[in-house]
Amino acid sequence: MTTEQNDLKHMRHALRLARRGLGNVWPNPAVGCVLIRDGVVVGRGWTQSGGRPHAERVALAQAGDLARGATAYVTLEPCAHHGRTSPCSEALIAAGVSRVVSALTDPDPRVAGRGHAMLRAAGIDVTENVGADMARQAQVGFLSRMTRGRPYVTLKLATSFDGRIATSSGESKWITGEKTRQHVHALRAMHDAIMVGAGTARADRPSLNVRGFDVPRQPARVVVTHGALPDLPPEGPDFGPLWQVAGDIPGIMSDLAARGITRVFCEGGGQLAAGLIQAGVVDQLVGYTAGLVLGADGRPGMGSLTYAALADARRFRLAETRRIGPDLFHRWQAV
Amino acid sequence: MTTEQNDLKHMRHALRLARRGLGNVWPNPAVGCVLIRDGVVVGRGWTQSGGRPHAERVALAQAGDLARGATAYVTLEPCAHHGRTSPCSEALIAAGVSRVVSALTDPDPRVAGRGHAMLRAAGIDVTENVGADMARQAQVGFLSRMTRGRPYVTLKLATSFDGRIATSSGESKWITGEKTRQHVHALRAMHDAIMVGAGTARADRPSLNVRGFDVPRQPARVVVTHGALPDLPPEGPDFGPLWQVAGDIPGIMSDLAARGITRVFCEGGGQLAAGLIQAGVVDQLVGYTAGLVLGADGRPGMGSLTYAALADARRFRLAETRRIGPDLFHRWQAV
Repeated sequence: MTTEQNDLKHMRHALRLARRGLGNVWPNPAVGCVLIRDGVVVGRGWTQSGGRPHAERVALAQAGDLARGATAYVTLEPCAHHGRTSPCSEALIAAGVSRVVSALTDPDPRVAGRGHAMLRAAGIDVTENVGADMARQAQVGFLSRMTRGRPYVTLKLATSFDGRIATSSGESKWITGEKTRQHVHALRAMHDAIMVGAGTARADRPSLNVRGFDVPRQPARVVVTHGALPDLPPEGPDFGPLWQVAGDIPGIMSDLAARGITRVFCEGGGQLAAGLIQAGVVDQLVGYTAGLVLGADGRPGMGSLTYAALADARRFRLAETRRIGPDLFHRWQAV
Repeated sequence: MTTEQNDLKHMRHALRLARRGLGNVWPNPAVGCVLIRDGVVVGRGWTQSGGRPHAERVALAQAGDLARGATAYVTLEPCAHHGRTSPCSEALIAAGVSRVVSALTDPDPRVAGRGHAMLRAAGIDVTENVGADMARQAQVGFLSRMTRGRPYVTLKLATSFDGRIATSSGESKWITGEKTRQHVHALRAMHDAIMVGAGTARADRPSLNVRGFDVPRQPARVVVTHGALPDLPPEGPDFGPLWQVAGDIPGIMSDLAARGITRVFCEGGGQLAAGLIQAGVVDQLVGYTAGLVLGADGRPGMGSLTYAALADARRFRLAETRRIGPDLFHRWQAV
């Protein structure tokens, strides 16, 4: 195995660890770190719930003296700024790490290359951009918040074969199967916030939380409404913070970014979904299709878009598809 | 390899040959035949365009004297009745075949076990029901016509992510990609008839033929209309027969079966599609989903069904799914 292949292998390991933080480390990035000495893993870490401690701290604590002379694989440039704690770059230097391999430069203006520079200044060998494309995928929410000032937005639709989310009488339980509902909870767990329109919040009284999985932190509940908030359970161990937001979609997105949200999961209704599509902020479509037909009188999952021409509709690229129980799962990314 | 495994291997081969006849042998079944002597293929055949010659005749002609002592693998019981030619069972006996392996008993009342009996009476070793499930799938249209008195019905829907077949202005070219359109032509080629409603026939002037593939026989064009037939090209080398049908769906289906049709491919519009669903005759759903969102004002591919409850909707089982170019293909079968 060449050094490059070896580096990529360890970075993949670090990225798997990084993903464990998705949905529960906001406003911080979900970072992973692996420490390798003489080909052996001596420390593994990922950003902990709430964003602290950072991945490097966890891995260094695990390695102890074995960190001396090791190579650190980090999915994002180690931080260089003094916050609640001293920067991770300092910690890596103090631990005697001899080489650092990183996937991405941190776009946070407080870091932005200073971490890499600090390490090099201390005589550490630094290799950048290893597995950068994979890392961009894993940290897409953090990067979106930093570079676009808004969270990464995923829009979910669970429908019949002909695109309906309920019968004309409003019956929707259950179009998709039990395994799909579990999958939805797993996706919720990987997002910082779950967003619904006021109509959906009032009509369905959705719990908007993660069930069936132990999560260190429940996602924030975001209800888009100009009127009063519907009666939803208060924040607690089983429910994240409850936020009422209003205004136009770009404003709402800026607001959420300002609150620290990096990944939003929108679960309806149709008017909000159409608003997100029309505002051009939907980065990802998640579809669950069930094997039944409900007909044109069934309820659509998407509001009106009033496109004059087909060419006005933005195209999404099929990123993933597979069976989930009796249903078909498909995930598309904006191109 | 045991005899059973060996038999299944050769039957799979015969089934691959059988499928070549789908769409162009009606009203006859699409049968495949492989002749094996001392482990070597000495003859291969499948039902020829229009239904004659039968698969066994083609394989025997190819094998010549080598058929003597060979084993014949046939996907359907060899016929036993005198039609335009003498029965295939007689031909197999005359050729000196020593063993016949068949997948299914022919439900045609003129055969119905007499083929197997005739072979056994001549001292030929007969093994039945080898690969029966696979054979039932391949001959599902013929079996449907024979046992249910109607063709096997496939309903196609090519839609946006949110289940729309056109913008509100009616623009539909092209929601799905070039590769999907080629795939649709390949599916048309495997069906005896293509069916549309009068509205679709008038509005889209669909060619309702197979293009981009050499087919020995173009599918019949079936337009469901009580009014005048829209102006479509006359029957010729590039277009199959043009039939106007009317009445209720069960009546139309009996009519098509009486004309010899075993497999129908329905391509819209929404009212006809809903009629087929409501009549409970849809055996298979074929979906193509494109990565764009058209909104509730886009045109639905399915008419109204007025289900009172979700439980009224029949369930389909996901049989196949894969990417086709940029689109998602999914095929579901009635359970």
